[in-house]
This record gives sequence, structure tokens and C-alpha cells, in this order.
Amino acid sequence: MPNPTAAMLVIGDEILSGRTRDANMHYLAGELTKVGIDLKEVRIVSDDRAAIVTAVKALSGAYDHVVTSGGIGPTHDDITADCIAEAFGAHIGVRDDARALLAAHYDRQGLAFNEARQRMARIPDGATLIDNPVSVAPGFTLGNVHVMAGVPSVFQAMVASVLPTLTGGTPLLSQSLRIERGEGEIAGPLAQLAADFPELSIGSYPYQRNGVYGANIVIRGSDGAMVDAAMTRLSGMFPA
Amino acid sequence: MPNPTAAMLVIGDEILSGRTRDANMHYLAGELTKVGIDLKEVRIVSDDRAAIVTAVKALSGAYDHVVTSGGIGPTHDDITADCIAEAFGAHIGVRDDARALLAAHYDRQGLAFNEARQRMARIPDGATLIDNPVSVAPGFTLGNVHVMAGVPSVFQAMVASVLPTLTGGTPLLSQSLRIERGEGEIAGPLAQLAADFPELSIGSYPYQRNGVYGANIVIRGSDGAMVDAAMTRLSGMFPA
Repeated sequence: MPNPTAAMLVIGDEILSGRTRDANMHYLAGELTKVGIDLKEVRIVSDDRAAIVTAVKALSGAYDHVVTSGGIGPTHDDITADCIAEAFGAHIGVRDDARALLAAHYDRQGLAFNEARQRMARIPDGATLIDNPVSVAPGFTLGNVHVMAGVPSVFQAMVASVLPTLTGGTPLLSQSLRIERGEGEIAGPLAQLAADFPELSIGSYPYQRNGVYGANIVIRGSDGAMVDAAMTRLSGMFPA
Repeated sequence: MPNPTAAMLVIGDEILSGRTRDANMHYLAGELTKVGIDLKEVRIVSDDRAAIVTAVKALSGAYDHVVTSGGIGPTHDDITADCIAEAFGAHIGVRDDARALLAAHYDRQGLAFNEARQRMARIPDGATLIDNPVSVAPGFTLGNVHVMAGVPSVFQAMVASVLPTLTGGTPLLSQSLRIERGEGEIAGPLAQLAADFPELSIGSYPYQRNGVYGANIVIRGSDGAMVDAAMTRLSGMFPA
């Protein structure tokens, strides 16, 4: 049997203007190759409704899977979700489960869940959410199109969420913990944790916010009890 | 008047498999932005005849300019020139001027101008050659499609050759000199040369061949007499 085929659609003016260098294409290419899915085509288009809809229809019809990156944030030029809905003739609106995830996230951070942020809960009817353990705002799968964020750390986390479902493997479960310390301080204990749980994948996604360094630690694995155990240990190492 | 539009077609299995990370797209995006041409779409396809021909037709019809990279080397999977000819319904064969450039190049190097290398002189009828001051084998322009090499140093040199013709500017002239010394040895005198000829662009493209380090030095400018003067000085600094 030939390998399944895939295409990628990168959405973003900032790539086409040369301001930002795309990192997601190279990452996805490597991950797909590892699991035996052939990436056959990549297209990069601007934040333009007609261009996105045309590309989604063409790629979705020609390949087994399509992965998109970019355009699902809170600003006015984030139009990917609406374009995917249009390409599939699906209705789109704020969905309760996505809204609840985001509301809880901003509540924990003491930030307003304003109208712009609520845009990120707009999901086409019939879609399945894609877990975002890094920054919560979910991606989604509609038909054979997997819609992911453009920020590389989030894109990579979403690829890890979706890839097992494409290859018939066991889906990965994830838990995350935000630690307000620099990575240099947590790297040692984290390496020990990774050594003690070799079956789990433990990732660190650093951030800087208002001058404070921190990292989101994401623990993934197919055995939920083991993920729980590692997270309990991690929380004990770094009490809030 | 709106800016002219452009698309890029990257050809190469090695990009889609994740083995190589494309560098040309980001470079071209930046150069086009500088001169006011809007890069609207990029496609990356594999070394597949139907995929290349389809993409060339679609992009050539939709945008003012199309730049391709990759697939113009001497090996069997270098099929870009044939695909461009097919897309335009043009005949393709070994062309005398391209053949003469390559024959002289390999003669200078004491290398056989064998059948594989002669493939690089295959140019569609009606095309204009694109200067390759780095490794001689030319690109070409047919209609609104500019066919360039995938090796980044050669791609960049070809972009420099073509870009002025797209914007109505004065075409750049170039001369090159191969110097069989490491870049560390020539960097000082080269910086002095660049300082003495601020109107010229002086580039160094290092290589390593059979354990010998060297560099191709390319001098570019719109004033032919000035390019001559700088090249005479350079040759005097590093006699063969």
C-alpha cells in the first residue's frame, strides 16, 4: 500500500514579506517523514480570504491530509477558521467547549476574556478540537484539514496531538504546568524527571512576560496514570 | 498603481522530506519586498513532472512574475527545464551559448564536460539565459518564469542578475574570480577592496573541493568600467 499523502498550507503575510522565517514547514516535514506520511506539497499564501479558501479546497481534494498553520489568533487578520468553514460550507460560531477552556485560562491568569480573545473560540460546526497544552486556544480538525497555530511551540504541540490519530496509533494525553522560573533553574530537575519517566515526553516551552521568565512544561504519554504520576512529582518540585 | 506580483515555486523532494531546510524562499521574500514586488504565493512541490508543470501553469497565469528554484543540475532527477518547456509548449535542446559557457568552465578546471554536465546546457527555445557567476551553469527566463538553481549561493547570485530587469532598473554586470585560498586569508584584502569601491557589490562564495579551500569572488555593478577596474585590482592581489 502506498504511504498516505499530506499537504501543508502556511498562512501569513509575515512569511511572504520576509519579515518572519517559517519554521513550521521544516518541522512538519520531518515529523511526517518519521511516521511514513509523504508530504507532497506546501503552499504559502497571504491573509487573504479568497486565496486561503481556494488553497484549502485544492489541497483537501488532492491529498489524504492537510495541515494548516497560522491565522487562528485574536486579531482581525486571523481569518483562517472562517475560511476553513467557507471551504467546507460549514457554519461557524463560538463553541461552548472552546469558550470554557479559554475562559478558565484567562481567569487563572487574571486577564480579561474580552471580545478579541473570544474570537479564538470560533470553531466550525462538526470540527474536533485539537489540544493546545502550551497556550490553551485550541486548533481543530474539519474533514481532512487540521488547523493549527503559527507560533512554532504551539504548532509543534498540536502536531504531537494530531499525528498519532493520523497513523492509527494511540492518541497522546497531555498535562501542562506553568512555572514562573527561568529555564536555567528548572533544567536540572526536569532532566531528572525525564530520566525517571522514559516512556513520557516532557517538553519545556519558555516565555517572558512583563520581564518575568517562565516556562510551560508539557508532559505527554499514552498512559494516563503515568502522566498523572509525573505531573504530581513535577508540581511537588516547583510549588506555585 | 498596485505593486507587481510574484510567486515562487520551490522544486525538491529534499525540502518536503525535511532533510534540507529551504533558505531561498526567505531570501527571495526579503529581496522582492525591498524593490516593491509583492510575493503573493509560494508552492513547494516534489521532483515530479506533472506536479511541476501544473504549478508552473497555475502560477505563471496568476502572477506577474514566477521564480523557481531547484532541479537544474546534472542528475536524472533535475527535470525543471524540461517541465518549464512543457508548460509553455516550447521545444528544448542543448543550446550553443550555454554549451560554450559550460565547456570553457570545465576546460579551465580540467574536468570532463561529460553527458551529465551537458544536460545543464538544455534550454527551452525562446528563453534568455540568467548569468551564474558562482558556478557558471546558467538559469533562464521563459515568458514570466525565471528558472534558478537551488543551491543558495547560486540562487542568490541569479536573483541579483534578474531583479533589476523586473523593476526597470539598470541590469547589474558581473565578473568573478576563483581564488584557491581560505576565506580567512582573503577577507582582509577583500574588505579593503569593498571599501575602495563602495558603488560595487563584492561577494565571496566559499567552497571546499578535494580538501582544498577556496572562494569564488563575484564583483557586481552597473558601471562596466568600474567592475573591470576592481577585478584588475583583485587579480593583482591574488595572482593564480
